[in-house]
Amino acid sequence: MHEKEEQFQFGSCPIPLNQHETIQLAHGSGGQLMNDLIHDVFINSFKNPILENVEDQATLNISGRRLTFSTDTFVIDPIFFPGGNIGELAVNGTVNDVCMSGATPLFLSTGMILEEGFSISDLKKIVDSMAKTADKCGVKIVTGDTKVVNRGKGDKIYINTSGIGLIEHSYDIGMHSIKPGDKIIVSGTLADHGIAVLSKREGLTFQTEIKSDTAALNTLVQKIIETGKESVHSMRDLTRGGLASALNEFSQKINLEFQLDEEMIPLKPAVKGACELLGLDPLQLANEGKMVVIAAQDDADKILTAIKQNPLGKDAAIIGTVGENQKSRVIIRTPIGGWRFLDMLVGEPLPRIC
Amino acid sequence: MHEKEEQFQFGSCPIPLNQHETIQLAHGSGGQLMNDLIHDVFINSFKNPILENVEDQATLNISGRRLTFSTDTFVIDPIFFPGGNIGELAVNGTVNDVCMSGATPLFLSTGMILEEGFSISDLKKIVDSMAKTADKCGVKIVTGDTKVVNRGKGDKIYINTSGIGLIEHSYDIGMHSIKPGDKIIVSGTLADHGIAVLSKREGLTFQTEIKSDTAALNTLVQKIIETGKESVHSMRDLTRGGLASALNEFSQKINLEFQLDEEMIPLKPAVKGACELLGLDPLQLANEGKMVVIAAQDDADKILTAIKQNPLGKDAAIIGTVGENQKSRVIIRTPIGGWRFLDMLVGEPLPRIC
Repeated sequence: MHEKEEQFQFGSCPIPLNQHETIQLAHGSGGQLMNDLIHDVFINSFKNPILENVEDQATLNISGRRLTFSTDTFVIDPIFFPGGNIGELAVNGTVNDVCMSGATPLFLSTGMILEEGFSISDLKKIVDSMAKTADKCGVKIVTGDTKVVNRGKGDKIYINTSGIGLIEHSYDIGMHSIKPGDKIIVSGTLADHGIAVLSKREGLTFQTEIKSDTAALNTLVQKIIETGKESVHSMRDLTRGGLASALNEFSQKINLEFQLDEEMIPLKPAVKGACELLGLDPLQLANEGKMVVIAAQDDADKILTAIKQNPLGKDAAIIGTVGENQKSRVIIRTPIGGWRFLDMLVGEPLPRIC
Repeated sequence: MHEKEEQFQFGSCPIPLNQHETIQLAHGSGGQLMNDLIHDVFINSFKNPILENVEDQATLNISGRRLTFSTDTFVIDPIFFPGGNIGELAVNGTVNDVCMSGATPLFLSTGMILEEGFSISDLKKIVDSMAKTADKCGVKIVTGDTKVVNRGKGDKIYINTSGIGLIEHSYDIGMHSIKPGDKIIVSGTLADHGIAVLSKREGLTFQTEIKSDTAALNTLVQKIIETGKESVHSMRDLTRGGLASALNEFSQKINLEFQLDEEMIPLKPAVKGACELLGLDPLQLANEGKMVVIAAQDDADKILTAIKQNPLGKDAAIIGTVGENQKSRVIIRTPIGGWRFLDMLVGEPLPRIC
């Protein structure tokens, strides 16, 4: 078996994936190539224990306070899509990254790159939408920066948001707290955002309109922590690369096998149909208002019930278990009873999804 | 006079500057058009008292601690230039914005937009340079995000950095603290960065090579505060739009006339020569390692001496005074004894300077 693995690794792929000399679209997919880039280039160079945690947010201790700090840049195409726009996404996205540590998001910054020739009325719509979304999440946008690039050196508008939150609980939430036997809970149907953006971009129409799920999850997270307390081991919002990326990252970090049950994974029928038609795996597609919670087995049902009481979590489900096998992989039981691997994305089916 | 002013405002310019329907390069210049955009679109929509301060950084109160939060996106072209590169600039730039409140910069985030096809070896150089610069400033890069855009939708690399600092002093530093009679101090020669980037971009060569002044000013700022204490009324690093933009913003905010003495303003002879040749005003050009301090008259000399003791401040000078006239304008005494207005940039002589 060991021999076979070696053969697979060194035999069947003459050019290792990480030996590209230039940036590929897939380096931004949220999948394997991006993971390699982050480790080889960024973590390797910036090395510090906070960054090495590879969470979506940094947990900081500043003068006796526990704060969370996160950043995200949005380059989505198109900038207006069914269910939202780039501004709304930029606020919700960073609020979600900040709150996954259990922090209360408080303040956002915004850095814009505008392309020469971009419509000021579209800019106003986007900025108004950011303001409304921030209000709804209870965060304030307190500092910003605007750059303009020449026509053809950008694409209408790119938005970076960074966010600060305050952690007031004392639980130790993070990948390192995941244990064998923990339950894997997702907060709702997967891949809605990915399919909504794809359909708008490619001009596809489905019988039922599929809308992005963009939403801020901070109130849901507060409820999860109040209910689950120290049983909440890890949380992650499922964006680029979808559930597959999040669980593979967890699994690689803690070297435990994640076991899913495909039949339990919530999918809207229209999304499922679109994915079958297009040959895409919904578990590898982006979400913008969904999360996964890894929780102690004994309290998993209680946490699930709390999630389902929130409108953003009404379709939540327990979809699997963290196994005892010390293997960095995610496996999934298919409806006919077999098992398959759920890998991270390797290529890039949907560039610029967020 | 009043009639004349009206005639000037409504008569001589048939299309007001702020009635563009699309983004112009000049909206990113750090000058008047950018100022209009920030007020009309961003502040108007995001409205909150922290943002309305229009400082380069937000001062936050989180759980009894005073923190500073700032963001800046770097789109400079070329990405490698005499004296530095985009990575070094991105770290120094945000460290400077954070520390101008007198905060100790602690943590940075970084959000990258990479263009498909960008050289990974150049990326590594830039990231290594960020790591070294951060080390030198005593800040940690603790969280990041990477996006990839299609070829022709970006330009090699754009970098956003956001930063958090801790304010440990109790002084009230900000534009609102500026008083008539205050002295205006600059920390060194102006326009070095602007001319260095321009010369590289346009392939100009001068007898003396002009290098960017990119540098982190946090240790200099600590020294200024230790020395000047409550006499330090306001500080600003002089980036896009140069000294002209910073002082015009101050003047507009507090409605006092700023009076400068042209002969006192430090300029490298090579930079002065290049500006004369190219028809550019060095006071409107970008710096990346220079600051202006507005300080109480009685302590200005003491503060100047402290600045000059730091290698980054060896060419510092007192260049003017805040007047008693309640007029939002900056005036400058020319070497032949007359006065001229120093306006913000209106056009954009140097797009993508930072």
